[in-house]
Amino acid sequence: MKIKVINPNTTLSMTAKIGEAARAVAAVGTEIVAVSPQMGPVSIEGFYDDAFAAIGVIDEVRKGEAEGFDGYVIACFGDPGLHAARELAKGPVVGIAEAAMHAASLIGTGFSVVSTLDRSRAHLEHLVHAYGMTHRCRSIRTTDMAVLDLEEEGSNARAVVVEECRKAIEEDKADCVLLGCGGMSDLMAHVSREIGAPAIDGVSAGVKLVEGLVALGLGTAKRGGYARPLPKTYTGNFAGYGPTA
Amino acid sequence: MKIKVINPNTTLSMTAKIGEAARAVAAVGTEIVAVSPQMGPVSIEGFYDDAFAAIGVIDEVRKGEAEGFDGYVIACFGDPGLHAARELAKGPVVGIAEAAMHAASLIGTGFSVVSTLDRSRAHLEHLVHAYGMTHRCRSIRTTDMAVLDLEEEGSNARAVVVEECRKAIEEDKADCVLLGCGGMSDLMAHVSREIGAPAIDGVSAGVKLVEGLVALGLGTAKRGGYARPLPKTYTGNFAGYGPTA
Amino acid sequence: MKIKVINPNTTLSMTAKIGEAARAVAAVGTEIVAVSPQMGPVSIEGFYDDAFAAIGVIDEVRKGEAEGFDGYVIACFGDPGLHAARELAKGPVVGIAEAAMHAASLIGTGFSVVSTLDRSRAHLEHLVHAYGMTHRCRSIRTTDMAVLDLEEEGSNARAVVVEECRKAIEEDKADCVLLGCGGMSDLMAHVSREIGAPAIDGVSAGVKLVEGLVALGLGTAKRGGYARPLPKTYTGNFAGYGPTA
Amino acid sequence: MKIKVINPNTTLSMTAKIGEAARAVAAVGTEIVAVSPQMGPVSIEGFYDDAFAAIGVIDEVRKGEAEGFDGYVIACFGDPGLHAARELAKGPVVGIAEAAMHAASLIGTGFSVVSTLDRSRAHLEHLVHAYGMTHRCRSIRTTDMAVLDLEEEGSNARAVVVEECRKAIEEDKADCVLLGCGGMSDLMAHVSREIGAPAIDGVSAGVKLVEGLVALGLGTAKRGGYARPLPKTYTGNFAGYGPTA
Amino acid sequence: MKIKVINPNTTLSMTAKIGEAARAVAAVGTEIVAVSPQMGPVSIEGFYDDAFAAIGVIDEVRKGEAEGFDGYVIACFGDPGLHAARELAKGPVVGIAEAAMHAASLIGTGFSVVSTLDRSRAHLEHLVHAYGMTHRCRSIRTTDMAVLDLEEEGSNARAVVVEECRKAIEEDKADCVLLGCGGMSDLMAHVSREIGAPAIDGVSAGVKLVEGLVALGLGTAKRGGYARPLPKTYTGNFAGYGPTA
Amino acid sequence: MKIKVINPNTTLSMTAKIGEAARAVAAVGTEIVAVSPQMGPVSIEGFYDDAFAAIGVIDEVRKGEAEGFDGYVIACFGDPGLHAARELAKGPVVGIAEAAMHAASLIGTGFSVVSTLDRSRAHLEHLVHAYGMTHRCRSIRTTDMAVLDLEEEGSNARAVVVEECRKAIEEDKADCVLLGCGGMSDLMAHVSREIGAPAIDGVSAGVKLVEGLVALGLGTAKRGGYARPLPKTYTGNFAGYGPTA
Repeated sequence: MKIKVINPNTTLSMTAKIGEAARAVAAVGTEIVAVSPQMGPVSIEGFYDDAFAAIGVIDEVRKGEAEGFDGYVIACFGDPGLHAARELAKGPVVGIAEAAMHAASLIGTGFSVVSTLDRSRAHLEHLVHAYGMTHRCRSIRTTDMAVLDLEEEGSNARAVVVEECRKAIEEDKADCVLLGCGGMSDLMAHVSREIGAPAIDGVSAGVKLVEGLVALGLGTAKRGGYARPLPKTYTGNFAGYGPTA
Repeated sequence: MKIKVINPNTTLSMTAKIGEAARAVAAVGTEIVAVSPQMGPVSIEGFYDDAFAAIGVIDEVRKGEAEGFDGYVIACFGDPGLHAARELAKGPVVGIAEAAMHAASLIGTGFSVVSTLDRSRAHLEHLVHAYGMTHRCRSIRTTDMAVLDLEEEGSNARAVVVEECRKAIEEDKADCVLLGCGGMSDLMAHVSREIGAPAIDGVSAGVKLVEGLVALGLGTAKRGGYARPLPKTYTGNFAGYGPTA
Repeated sequence: MKIKVINPNTTLSMTAKIGEAARAVAAVGTEIVAVSPQMGPVSIEGFYDDAFAAIGVIDEVRKGEAEGFDGYVIACFGDPGLHAARELAKGPVVGIAEAAMHAASLIGTGFSVVSTLDRSRAHLEHLVHAYGMTHRCRSIRTTDMAVLDLEEEGSNARAVVVEECRKAIEEDKADCVLLGCGGMSDLMAHVSREIGAPAIDGVSAGVKLVEGLVALGLGTAKRGGYARPLPKTYTGNFAGYGPTA
Repeated sequence: MKIKVINPNTTLSMTAKIGEAARAVAAVGTEIVAVSPQMGPVSIEGFYDDAFAAIGVIDEVRKGEAEGFDGYVIACFGDPGLHAARELAKGPVVGIAEAAMHAASLIGTGFSVVSTLDRSRAHLEHLVHAYGMTHRCRSIRTTDMAVLDLEEEGSNARAVVVEECRKAIEEDKADCVLLGCGGMSDLMAHVSREIGAPAIDGVSAGVKLVEGLVALGLGTAKRGGYARPLPKTYTGNFAGYGPTA
Repeated sequence: MKIKVINPNTTLSMTAKIGEAARAVAAVGTEIVAVSPQMGPVSIEGFYDDAFAAIGVIDEVRKGEAEGFDGYVIACFGDPGLHAARELAKGPVVGIAEAAMHAASLIGTGFSVVSTLDRSRAHLEHLVHAYGMTHRCRSIRTTDMAVLDLEEEGSNARAVVVEECRKAIEEDKADCVLLGCGGMSDLMAHVSREIGAPAIDGVSAGVKLVEGLVALGLGTAKRGGYARPLPKTYTGNFAGYGPTA
Repeated sequence: MKIKVINPNTTLSMTAKIGEAARAVAAVGTEIVAVSPQMGPVSIEGFYDDAFAAIGVIDEVRKGEAEGFDGYVIACFGDPGLHAARELAKGPVVGIAEAAMHAASLIGTGFSVVSTLDRSRAHLEHLVHAYGMTHRCRSIRTTDMAVLDLEEEGSNARAVVVEECRKAIEEDKADCVLLGCGGMSDLMAHVSREIGAPAIDGVSAGVKLVEGLVALGLGTAKRGGYARPLPKTYTGNFAGYGPTA
């Protein structure tokens, strides 16, 4: 089985980290290919970045279909381009925010999200609401770190994340915590150990969900809202992206 | 006051129609500039088209800020790029789906949406849920027409739309109807008359909402989720889109 | 266009203030008539006051229809008599709580309400729930001021309101604030400036929404729950209010 | 124990019927006084009628407090004046719509409401939503009968109500049915028998709920939203209604 | 009328206390029989205890039907076995959590629950959500007391409960408080007095609700989800529990 | 990895079928042990059966912990005993209703459930609501077949299931369908093929979800509502089930 793990931003150190996290949990026989789009933002911190990152994600899924991938993980905690990518893909496409939330639903009674900048709070709230997780979400906590701070050697990012996760458990009554950024995908074991409660990395969770769906023979449903894009003309810089029959 | 009405697709006959609808309701002193993006799909019928159209919308808002526009209407009933556009704009940005739903909330007890292809149903449901309109939405009806069918001279599009609107009123107990496509913006008066109940065109509604917000001195809130995009590097085809300070 | 702005209480200094706020934002060509009912409470602080104020509002709409008004604003943040008034009116009727909430939905990701006495909290919660705004409402804050304290010359009302609005932004993560009383309609610009974020006065917002709906040719829907009251006999003190055909 | 059962309309034949229904279920030792207000509509069919009826209800509760009543039932299926009445009353106040819905929640998995004119649908939907009953309400069915049709000797009202109740059970999968009008309070046993499933009359249910609350020593909570109305001046025709300390 | 009040745990001192609370509010002519199951946990503090207690409850309802009981109260604040018991019973079955929540809905604008160990929080949240009470629940507060601490002579349980109830009123803006454990059924009057606001014991409330429903002739609906269990074979230790025709 | 798949009823032909379905999708290296409890109902068709089945499930999880299982699937579409089982288990426990719903959320925009007897409708609605899936559930369809009809050689069960699934797709606009009974676990491929859309068997989905969680090192969260049962005395027939330290 071949799974493409798409880091929607273009910071390759993060892509490498995400690829490692994905390979660490992948089953024997699963080939993980971790990529960044050829274009787009170096980090995703808001709706604007998200919109451009979505195109990069879509482009990777488009190519992935030709390359024979069985499924996709979108490795940014805003799930950019998720629904559009599903229109393209025969196999499953899973975003890491939804992966983490669904996993949390199966092992705990209430989760908190620990993310980076507070400006992403609204986007996270939109996802919690859209995914039907309002009654399971104890809190969204932010750390005042930029996404790329997580890439800095020697930063105190780990300690900051652990501290917020601990508060989520102790003050907000969460019993598990979601690591709210693809750049935290190397922290799952460390944080879990430190806080004595499950910390869920969506990249890892996403890989296992996609593996599972593919093994079940379940691809994206093609009779309704995720039907293949209709063939039509695209113009300008996007001329090459017009769907064909 | 200058309002940019952005038809997110690249079909100029529709842009012209939308511009006319906008100008027909604009206040004296409001300048309406109706545009299509320089790139993107000729029509928007699903999440894939929507993702590309979002970039076109964002691009028009980016340019619009330099051109001195006071506010924006996104004239596709999926509200593509809405949240991202708000990060860019100092003034208000309103999508025609939300415009129509908010207007309907002020004049009726329950609305139906009459749209084009059934493949858009899921997207419309997402918007209804996200906007908190679930308890006001009586039904979503589709017509099995493609968006561009509405541009065909001599098609029976009008009759089909009227017929579904009538069913929404009679069978689904709606007391007003939303015209669920920018390409229906010329049908508001006709449909209202035929069905004896308000039919709401989101383009027209969006123009009046933006005019109102601008007159109130209300722009997009800049302290939270709609703060300006952070300056950062964008690469590849999107290199020119990286936000600057 | 003629808009009747109804201050549902009988305190004429507040009516004058509300009228000024309305006129300050009204379009050229819009005539604002600000009135108080001939009967009812001097201020509205709870469900009991609200019930009596509703009759006053209805009476003013009833007369307004004869006087040729095109639309109405109900200028109390509990929206008294809103649904009943809509049965009477051919044109639109907008309450200032809903006006402020809808406006906030178009410019921010989450709002707080800053109101007067804490006893109104339950009523405000009912409205937030009824209007589908639960997921957008960050908090309801009260100030321990009576409504009429806002009319006292030399009171510290302004400072108190500003302080709570600031807390809403900083502690509750709202990105815009609703002024939760018609008597705060003179504070919009001042509060916005002080807190560096949009403060929304429902009177001003209501005027622009009504103007917009009228310009669109949209009146209250008459096929469902807002159909004209059925002709019937009313008795006793209300004998004169029985609807006629 | 003395319970005042207030028929919010002024049709005395209905008041008598409601009184009979109340007395038929009242405990030994409970005195039922069934009244109509001195003023207001002969029937309540919409928001406008409801607003005037609310004042009548309030007036009866105001007098009731002086007369030593222990609790109140508001015997119209729109629960007019409910929250305002609670501010006045030391004891409990229960509306028949909420009474019926709460009773249904305790005996079935999903209810339907069978009411009179379709114009009341929106009002009923508001109540279902406000009371948190959305997930229990299978349908709202209307009969195209006016409220006063139920008072006509020899009408086919009974048969019509039974027929809609039967459809609610068979087509809408309800397992119990709410009689959606105070004027149906004599039909509870008949309908239950005919449809082979519980039919709930809110008048009867309301009496038992009030009796129960009074027996528990539970009156209306007075520390929050139902605190006594603040003393203040009322003017005009309502001068006599200003709350006193 | 005979009502069986089932303490789902096997601690007889608690059963006695619950029986006393029930008898203290029962109407003349109501016979209260308070029982514990013949098997099961000494206290219920989590989902595991709840599952076993459910069987005990069911067994008591099964016997109760043969013994001629008219209705049942399940006297544990997790409502164990509620839906299953309803399949067995011809009359009504009410759990004390739902009884307290429904009663609170009729007298206040928002309630808090004060319970025992924090591990029950998730279960209580499930019930609040399932019963449609999310928008009425101000907070769930726990006391770090085990259920059986409430049975200790000379413990400070009363003081602890009062203190949390007070905080619920003052900090969380509740206007009434639910005593979140059957073992608190002797505290209703004391707590109410101390906090100056209604404290609701579900046992007492449950008795009055069952009495009321029985008096109305309302038993459990038998056409849908609460139809009698289908006759079938049960094996092993449960062989005796297989439903018969 | 060892996964225990618990068929909560005692019909061994169904257990065998469920075991086969589980093994068919299990990864190399996953050992599937399919069991039925030693006690309980031969089929689960309502809340009463569900309560007894829960004990059987719990008992199998209790033994499973001693036997060294890594995770559990509860193979009845009512998820009996799910929360209680989670208190016992260190590893993950997944019910097939939740498994199917979560899987559906990842591949489609809206699902329908096709189940057996209509009496289970209320239970299914409870689960949909509890799991936050209300806005994704297009319909619940039932087939008027008893669970054990699915075990009959030569019955038309397959055809009936296919027919209802087809209606769900065509009439209710679902884009995927959940097979709403463990006894349908052999129909996944057949139904998918017939209806041209994904049919999801919860047994298969549950196995892959548990495998995934175990591979991620994610067990049930133990700091909150799923903490181990507190040590305490159980009496009577359940004496052996009292939790120990």
